[in-house]
Amino acid sequence: MNLLESTIEGICPQDEAWRAKARERLEQLTMPYWALGRLMDLAEDLAGMSRSMRPPVKRKAIVTMVGDHGVTAEGISKYPPAVTPQMVHNFVNGGAGINALARCVDARVVVVDMGVAGDLDDLVQTGKIVSKRIGKGTHNIAAGPAMSAQEAVRCLEAGIEVALDLGSSTDVFGTGDMGIGNTTPSAAIAAAITGLPASEVTGRGTGIDDVQLKRKSEVVQRALDVNKPDPSDGLDVLAKVGGFEIGGLAGLILGAASQRKPILIDGFISTAAALIAHTLAPAASDYMIAAHRSEERGHRAMHKHLGKEPLLDLNMRLGEGTGAALAMHLVDAAVAVLTEVSTFDEASVSEAEE
Amino acid sequence: MNLLESTIEGICPQDEAWRAKARERLEQLTMPYWALGRLMDLAEDLAGMSRSMRPPVKRKAIVTMVGDHGVTAEGISKYPPAVTPQMVHNFVNGGAGINALARCVDARVVVVDMGVAGDLDDLVQTGKIVSKRIGKGTHNIAAGPAMSAQEAVRCLEAGIEVALDLGSSTDVFGTGDMGIGNTTPSAAIAAAITGLPASEVTGRGTGIDDVQLKRKSEVVQRALDVNKPDPSDGLDVLAKVGGFEIGGLAGLILGAASQRKPILIDGFISTAAALIAHTLAPAASDYMIAAHRSEERGHRAMHKHLGKEPLLDLNMRLGEGTGAALAMHLVDAAVAVLTEVSTFDEASVSEAEE
Repeated sequence: MNLLESTIEGICPQDEAWRAKARERLEQLTMPYWALGRLMDLAEDLAGMSRSMRPPVKRKAIVTMVGDHGVTAEGISKYPPAVTPQMVHNFVNGGAGINALARCVDARVVVVDMGVAGDLDDLVQTGKIVSKRIGKGTHNIAAGPAMSAQEAVRCLEAGIEVALDLGSSTDVFGTGDMGIGNTTPSAAIAAAITGLPASEVTGRGTGIDDVQLKRKSEVVQRALDVNKPDPSDGLDVLAKVGGFEIGGLAGLILGAASQRKPILIDGFISTAAALIAHTLAPAASDYMIAAHRSEERGHRAMHKHLGKEPLLDLNMRLGEGTGAALAMHLVDAAVAVLTEVSTFDEASVSEAEE
Repeated sequence: MNLLESTIEGICPQDEAWRAKARERLEQLTMPYWALGRLMDLAEDLAGMSRSMRPPVKRKAIVTMVGDHGVTAEGISKYPPAVTPQMVHNFVNGGAGINALARCVDARVVVVDMGVAGDLDDLVQTGKIVSKRIGKGTHNIAAGPAMSAQEAVRCLEAGIEVALDLGSSTDVFGTGDMGIGNTTPSAAIAAAITGLPASEVTGRGTGIDDVQLKRKSEVVQRALDVNKPDPSDGLDVLAKVGGFEIGGLAGLILGAASQRKPILIDGFISTAAALIAHTLAPAASDYMIAAHRSEERGHRAMHKHLGKEPLLDLNMRLGEGTGAALAMHLVDAAVAVLTEVSTFDEASVSEAEE
């Protein structure tokens, strides 16, 4: 049994007894019934994940996985692929959106090269990023598979390894992505797994116009027609229309779930990874927290397929893990509600009159 | 000119030049155009409020104002009025929802007695709460005015005084409320000012059933019929169908706006106070940040009247300032985006291809 298989086998659902125990306390807090709404739902989930009435959430890591995409040859992005390695340097220097928002919740940002076309050796050698490089960008999915089946397994296992390596120092994970062109494979994954037409899950990415959007939607449809991914097989979907960083993130999610740790799913690309993880191990979704609803078209349909309602909806569409970082504050808040608010008995407050 | 008049006179709109300066930087950050959406809108607002590219937001205070309501005699709440002073003790002991969520953003909780029916002298004498007591609860608005016009002015001025007293040690304010029965006057204020029928703005409050909801809606309608508040005169609306803590919060909002400081507006009761403040000084709304959309029916219509879209929507309906406290993290995040993210030039990242 390889690492992927053993990890999947190790994923158990949330624990119902711990959920019930948390619910019992939450219902007794000095406030009207369930008056903190989704914070209380989240507290119940965290207790069910961690098997604890004091879910550990202090040590946070956003894992931002980076890769390039052969499909950029089709002109589907507004930015040149050179931006991918430039942004990696920006992450390392602390100047990107994710750095600012991660600092707000005291989260580490761990950057993983899953397959950037450019040279990042200096950053790997100085330990500033982790290298799990599968190749120099994927093949053009509009012309054939993104990668081989073996490479898809390697992506997933690389993500699992990152989750396991960070596990001893991490209570809560967040996913993040960077890769010029990566909304195109993500849309293809969404269409393949949800069964929706390409046009309904393809969005403007970094901000393309109507003409480019039409072309991008046709490219997504072509990727599906040429590759015919099997929607019931996440590995096949990943290999045929995925991306290295998307596979890495799917592995990260499986690795977090196998350690019973919460993982905040960022935006459109991260949710494509979550779809793949869910196809491979449905119970993994018990550890996923949908951080936010991106502006990217199709994100809503992906959440619906996963049965998730995102916590935030702030018209964001950056990726990098920015939505996951923002939502980490809500995880802290949920734990504070569970662990710091007094019950009616503890505070000698009168209960509701029936 | 009294304190209320001079405060209203001192409220200026946001500064357009500082908004433009912030917008210019935000458009140059290393990300697709405005890719952090509402965080960037918020950053622009904060620059316009503070006249600064580094809006100060570190020192935070949630002001939770407390009062009782004669209208509880109509049986519109699920909890007995005794809960109001009990919850004040809970706030002081740090065991309420607001205490837990305020700690998460390092905010002080300042509790102000605006007119609780019970005795809180021990807490006032030991400095644990601020007393601005106008009376021992309002009169029953279903039978006549809540308070006199003079008392309404005193409520507003008390709130202004709190804002001015805290001003030297506070960068960001948040509103909070506690008072058994206070969704009823808030619904009456909403109906009076928005012009909507009582049935469309009256909600379940702490969790009443359908029969009680029908009765509560009738009570709200009766309060409007008996008192005939003038919708263009916030002072008249407050005196006739308001509450002491609601008036105090309206004053707090005016006082924050006069100091050009942002104030996060919590839930249904706080937004009723915001409607009154807006009627008295329309420019005050330039300093209001709608923290969240409560589950309480009618909150949406109140936000619409103010032209505000709330930041969070988490099925919460507790009040106390809990939504304001949660949203304070987004204020920190917005400032981090404005002040910590590099521009394309600073980070040597390629811009979009046109």
